[in-house]
Amino acid sequence: MRIAVDAMGGDYAPQQAVLGSIMAAKEEKIASVLVGRSEEINRELAQYEDYPQDLITVQDAREVVEFTDHPAMAVRKKRDSSIVVANQLLKNGEADAVISAGNTGAAMTASLFILGRIPGITRPAIAIPFPTVKGVTVLLDAGANAENDPQDLVQFAVMGTVYATAILGVATPKVGLLSNGEEETKGNKLVLETYPLLKESGLNFIGNVEGKDILMGVADVVVCDGFTGNIILKFAEGMASALFQKMKEAFHQSTLTKLGAMAVKSGLKKLKASFDYSEYGGAPLLGINGVSIISHGRSDAKAFKNAIKAAANSVEQDMIGKIRASLAKDGQ
Amino acid sequence: MRIAVDAMGGDYAPQQAVLGSIMAAKEEKIASVLVGRSEEINRELAQYEDYPQDLITVQDAREVVEFTDHPAMAVRKKRDSSIVVANQLLKNGEADAVISAGNTGAAMTASLFILGRIPGITRPAIAIPFPTVKGVTVLLDAGANAENDPQDLVQFAVMGTVYATAILGVATPKVGLLSNGEEETKGNKLVLETYPLLKESGLNFIGNVEGKDILMGVADVVVCDGFTGNIILKFAEGMASALFQKMKEAFHQSTLTKLGAMAVKSGLKKLKASFDYSEYGGAPLLGINGVSIISHGRSDAKAFKNAIKAAANSVEQDMIGKIRASLAKDGQ
Repeated sequence: MRIAVDAMGGDYAPQQAVLGSIMAAKEEKIASVLVGRSEEINRELAQYEDYPQDLITVQDAREVVEFTDHPAMAVRKKRDSSIVVANQLLKNGEADAVISAGNTGAAMTASLFILGRIPGITRPAIAIPFPTVKGVTVLLDAGANAENDPQDLVQFAVMGTVYATAILGVATPKVGLLSNGEEETKGNKLVLETYPLLKESGLNFIGNVEGKDILMGVADVVVCDGFTGNIILKFAEGMASALFQKMKEAFHQSTLTKLGAMAVKSGLKKLKASFDYSEYGGAPLLGINGVSIISHGRSDAKAFKNAIKAAANSVEQDMIGKIRASLAKDGQ
Repeated sequence: MRIAVDAMGGDYAPQQAVLGSIMAAKEEKIASVLVGRSEEINRELAQYEDYPQDLITVQDAREVVEFTDHPAMAVRKKRDSSIVVANQLLKNGEADAVISAGNTGAAMTASLFILGRIPGITRPAIAIPFPTVKGVTVLLDAGANAENDPQDLVQFAVMGTVYATAILGVATPKVGLLSNGEEETKGNKLVLETYPLLKESGLNFIGNVEGKDILMGVADVVVCDGFTGNIILKFAEGMASALFQKMKEAFHQSTLTKLGAMAVKSGLKKLKASFDYSEYGGAPLLGINGVSIISHGRSDAKAFKNAIKAAANSVEQDMIGKIRASLAKDGQ
């Protein structure tokens, strides 16, 4: 098993990707291939004399897709970019999964163009594992699509169920349909049309769930269109930032509050991390015919390590095979 | 000026509504009429011997719309309910604004049926003042509608602009269109069709804003369809709950963290309150031909007082007249 890591993607490239790969090799014995400008990657590797050389290889790729690049255009034109080459390695059987913390649109496009979709899947989805008060709830689609139809949402529910079972270890994942009210009669046109399909899907559908239910862990899988899911994901990021910024202000009011803040600092740091989805191994791009994981642009070494671990886990659990089997069974 | 308060609405009725009215009378010299079962209201009032009797009156209404009632049905059948009677007082000129913390759907329906819409408005909207790192951003629609068209969103932008100017005191409010990306090309069908209309609206339109931008205070007014807005509002409530629940756990780990938590307690309490929109005077139902404010079901006396203050402010600022004038000017 070998995980292809786009070493040029993310805000701290290639430094954090390289360190993350070393951590995955040392701590988890997972092999990875770092894809990107080899001289830059090797310069980073050289700083860690004792890194497990048998588990880490380098694949040269000369181009880099920037955050500002147009996704589809960049993937078409930059054929020797790290993200394109990383996906090619998977396609050619030289790697078992691919990870990128770069331009999300380009990472999706590259996986979609090069690896293709699982037969029967009309739209891939970004699945976000959200930390809840009970455990983890996976929300999809978090932004692979701007518009979806009811059949897409049923497929998201099938894929989310496989993910929750295989990766999160939930025996019979509860599936909720995100809506503006719990009653069957609540929802926009898409939700109203999706409800009866999910009811008859054979999945463990618990009905509509509201926005507040997501982080309360009411369901294991929450499905919605990619427009809504993207807004929620970004809102959660913004709210965490706003809250911790305001908290800092509240803690700087007096000597007493400053001392108090010092005492609770490590707890708060953990809390902050628990709202950062990169801690949970990144977001799998479900529906792609291969394990493709998108990491946050701000990913640090630990986030890369977690993503590599999650990717290896997805391969070991044969997540793609299980999605394929689930689609065949449900006749979706 | 006199504000009609549905005294039977909310989780702590009529106790907190009564106390809130007394606070508004004492602290702000605002008169209110408490609508509901007079014996229950009078029993509460009797506990405050020194309340300003000249500023507080009681209007008997025998029925109560429950949270479990079907909104439209309840408003049609329960003609002598506190929420229906409170709106009637406004309609008949016996009150200048109406406030309810009861069944949101019933409060909307009652205002819509009894007061009607401002001429030209196709859909009223719930406007939520969100606390941001910079000040307050008003998001609309937060759930009056399940589906909207581009023209609705333009009207929301006009009404939100008037609200931000008249009530929040922003000279030229920045209007953002909520989308899954900042670029003009990003969005679902509704957003893509709304963008050019807002661009030519004469409003201070700053383009698309993302979910993370809401609490960062990037715009003063953020418009979206009611389905999306409702999910965000509820998600924010759930995230605040989840976060403070997790924080409690983090603070109970050791004697040191417990002591630290005690020192920062008041700051955190303030922080929590700042994420509770009831602190900001409730959510105005914009587009109704009269000032109608919806308060949170969990409203306490302070929240009622703030809502009464906001209602009085909306009347003084002639918010309805200004929305009417704005619609005429923009030819919306």
